[in-house]
Amino acid sequence: MSGVKPTTEFLVEDWRSAFVSGRLDIRSTLGAHGAFVEMADHEVAAFVALGEAERNAQIDTLEQVKQSGQQPGALYGVSVGLKDIVDTEDFPTSYGSPIYEGRYAIADATVARRIRRAGGLILGKTATTEFATFHPAKTRNPHNPRHTPGGSSSGSAAAVAAGFVPVSIGTQTNGSVIRPASFCGVYGFKPSFGLIPRTGIFETSPSLDQVGFFGRSLEDMAALAQVVSGDDGRDPATKGRSPHRFFDICSEDFPIPPRFCFVHTPWWDQVAPDAREAYEAFLELMGSDIDKLVLPDVVNKAVDWHSVVYEAELAASLTREWSHHRQQLSSGLQARLEKAQGIKAVDYLMAQSRIDHVTDAFGEFFDIYDAILCPAALGTAPEGLSSTGNPIMQTVWTFGGLPCVSLPFLSGENGLPLGVQAVGPYLQDGRLLRALRWLVRTFDQRSSE
Amino acid sequence: MSGVKPTTEFLVEDWRSAFVSGRLDIRSTLGAHGAFVEMADHEVAAFVALGEAERNAQIDTLEQVKQSGQQPGALYGVSVGLKDIVDTEDFPTSYGSPIYEGRYAIADATVARRIRRAGGLILGKTATTEFATFHPAKTRNPHNPRHTPGGSSSGSAAAVAAGFVPVSIGTQTNGSVIRPASFCGVYGFKPSFGLIPRTGIFETSPSLDQVGFFGRSLEDMAALAQVVSGDDGRDPATKGRSPHRFFDICSEDFPIPPRFCFVHTPWWDQVAPDAREAYEAFLELMGSDIDKLVLPDVVNKAVDWHSVVYEAELAASLTREWSHHRQQLSSGLQARLEKAQGIKAVDYLMAQSRIDHVTDAFGEFFDIYDAILCPAALGTAPEGLSSTGNPIMQTVWTFGGLPCVSLPFLSGENGLPLGVQAVGPYLQDGRLLRALRWLVRTFDQRSSE
Repeated sequence: MSGVKPTTEFLVEDWRSAFVSGRLDIRSTLGAHGAFVEMADHEVAAFVALGEAERNAQIDTLEQVKQSGQQPGALYGVSVGLKDIVDTEDFPTSYGSPIYEGRYAIADATVARRIRRAGGLILGKTATTEFATFHPAKTRNPHNPRHTPGGSSSGSAAAVAAGFVPVSIGTQTNGSVIRPASFCGVYGFKPSFGLIPRTGIFETSPSLDQVGFFGRSLEDMAALAQVVSGDDGRDPATKGRSPHRFFDICSEDFPIPPRFCFVHTPWWDQVAPDAREAYEAFLELMGSDIDKLVLPDVVNKAVDWHSVVYEAELAASLTREWSHHRQQLSSGLQARLEKAQGIKAVDYLMAQSRIDHVTDAFGEFFDIYDAILCPAALGTAPEGLSSTGNPIMQTVWTFGGLPCVSLPFLSGENGLPLGVQAVGPYLQDGRLLRALRWLVRTFDQRSSE
Repeated sequence: MSGVKPTTEFLVEDWRSAFVSGRLDIRSTLGAHGAFVEMADHEVAAFVALGEAERNAQIDTLEQVKQSGQQPGALYGVSVGLKDIVDTEDFPTSYGSPIYEGRYAIADATVARRIRRAGGLILGKTATTEFATFHPAKTRNPHNPRHTPGGSSSGSAAAVAAGFVPVSIGTQTNGSVIRPASFCGVYGFKPSFGLIPRTGIFETSPSLDQVGFFGRSLEDMAALAQVVSGDDGRDPATKGRSPHRFFDICSEDFPIPPRFCFVHTPWWDQVAPDAREAYEAFLELMGSDIDKLVLPDVVNKAVDWHSVVYEAELAASLTREWSHHRQQLSSGLQARLEKAQGIKAVDYLMAQSRIDHVTDAFGEFFDIYDAILCPAALGTAPEGLSSTGNPIMQTVWTFGGLPCVSLPFLSGENGLPLGVQAVGPYLQDGRLLRALRWLVRTFDQRSSE
């Protein structure tokens, strides 16, 4: 069967068209693919819950949809991995904590419900660090199992990198989507704050928690994002927001070639030498298509403000666990929460009130540029599984709620992947993705010349 | 001219129809009324800014509106008093603080702009306590100048009680509308949290600050509320909220006689004996039309949560004044802010997260009753101007953001007024006002029998 693409390389549209056209049988294909994932995941440990019964029940529904003559949804038959802080009715949701091991949620999270409504199949729950914080999951980097996949959305990034699912859902409160995407060599996308409802997702910081996506193309992430976006009447952050047309806008023709700038950021000195070389080579390749600029001073303060808001809200969100299950929290998280008890309300409120200012602080950049580019991480995935790496390259953008993408363009001297991060104007996510389509195409052309 | 109603007794519709019909000349009438207010306010001190020039400029616009053939607005020619924490382009806005004496705002607050757009005339700025907190204004109670008018919306309540304006705007973060309404013997109305935009109003506590109204009838407050309500694209609390039809719903016929319950509240023991007698007499008069119930325990906790949220947010809102103008803050406010610096972020966040629970906690009452009735204050206006009285009867309702009204039904043994407070279900403000129209009519009939 030469020329046949393995399902591990299927993009969203490959899966969907194969099942909609009837070229592949949904039950036997997903059965074989699922069996492969169960076998292969022993090394990667991307999933914490996978199950034939749950899969078959979803396939039953998908077959009924087809037989009923109903128009198949945008994700018909597409497998999706869900970070294990996202509630599902069928799989348990354990938040990466022994406290909640085997916990079954009452209802699907909004994103889970919308994925199923669009015909998507939730293949399983992907490993998360403890409550999406710091204590690592068991997941290994598919490019080298001795290296971390990054976190906190460790399993979602690794599952896409390993070809287990074409797309997956993660969350980012500091750097938990873009960093693992960079480490695992896949695309990552964290949309603007407030576009994707967080209802049914464990809350670590209501001011900062943001849903994100992993995929092997910009279009695939856009297709998933479009299906799950828009006000659900429950998450105050999405109130009044209609669904964003991520995919539709991303797929449009470019009216004019987009413009980019690159910022080395105040943390450039901390970037590993081989990564610095890779970024400089990227800039050289792109030449005059990318201007070089310096970020405003506010980014340094934003890192401090992020810390105050995040630590205080995390401590508030984990009040019950801190009070009643303290011994089952990792020692690192215990120490962190202990320290966070001391944060003053006035300091928290001042920091929290700065979010809008930071969102607005990059206005002058986006008057001129379609995206700000910068490193996605301080280097390739660190060796070992005891840490998931440093989120500093994401902190400012997460704080300001700006849309961010990791583009899997580069690699380090050890051959591990390295992402270029692209940041766009607030609520202009579709336009950011459309501009990045141009960048991907141009970079591919030039690097193969 | 026997049988002619003095302008001090004009209701909203009297003012409007007199000018729309041309029965009274707007310039000479408002000129004479304005001159009276300037003279009479020497004793009451309801206003901190009044001015012929500002009045005439607004009359010019109103005459142009009429000459242009444009349909006159719902408040055409109606004088309104604005609490001096509400920005206006023409009058200074000084927040009741020497720090901001003579401060001119750049733009009208949303409520001021909407009042003018509806043909309303901003007669002047009414006295507020220091930053709408505790240190009293110079305003005296029109019923007895040796007694406080209540606060913090002292001047807005007194201006309506004195007949200077038919309606006025105040704000309530704890008990600052309902209590002065009770003390001054006028109607007071604090709508549901999130219906009236606070843009351009000094922020003391974003989670609790709520705009309110004073008037001499329910319909008058409803007319003003309807004009200023709805999302202005600036105040996050009003996001996505269309204008509420306060007046339209309030004016509807009653489908069936409304049902009421009375709660003595956990603070009944603190109510003055003559006020207790007045409330019991009211209950006796209403007989079986009012059931007696007990509030759930949560109301006691809500008072503590309110304090934590309010003090922390007040300290954050006054950060600049605390840092740069501390000596110009009253000693009471200084002490309060000093103490608030110690509030922990986790305690603040826990208390803040309880707001929605309190909003929902009265659901079972409103399944059965159209309104919960209770005392509007611990008694009539206390003697002296050094304190504006105790807000405890408002705290829970303000915390939960429920709509509240003070009905000027009663009086104490000293002859000073005493209000009955009515609380309605969240976002059902029009229905609450409609039910209270029945109560007002029924009470008036029975008390005159």
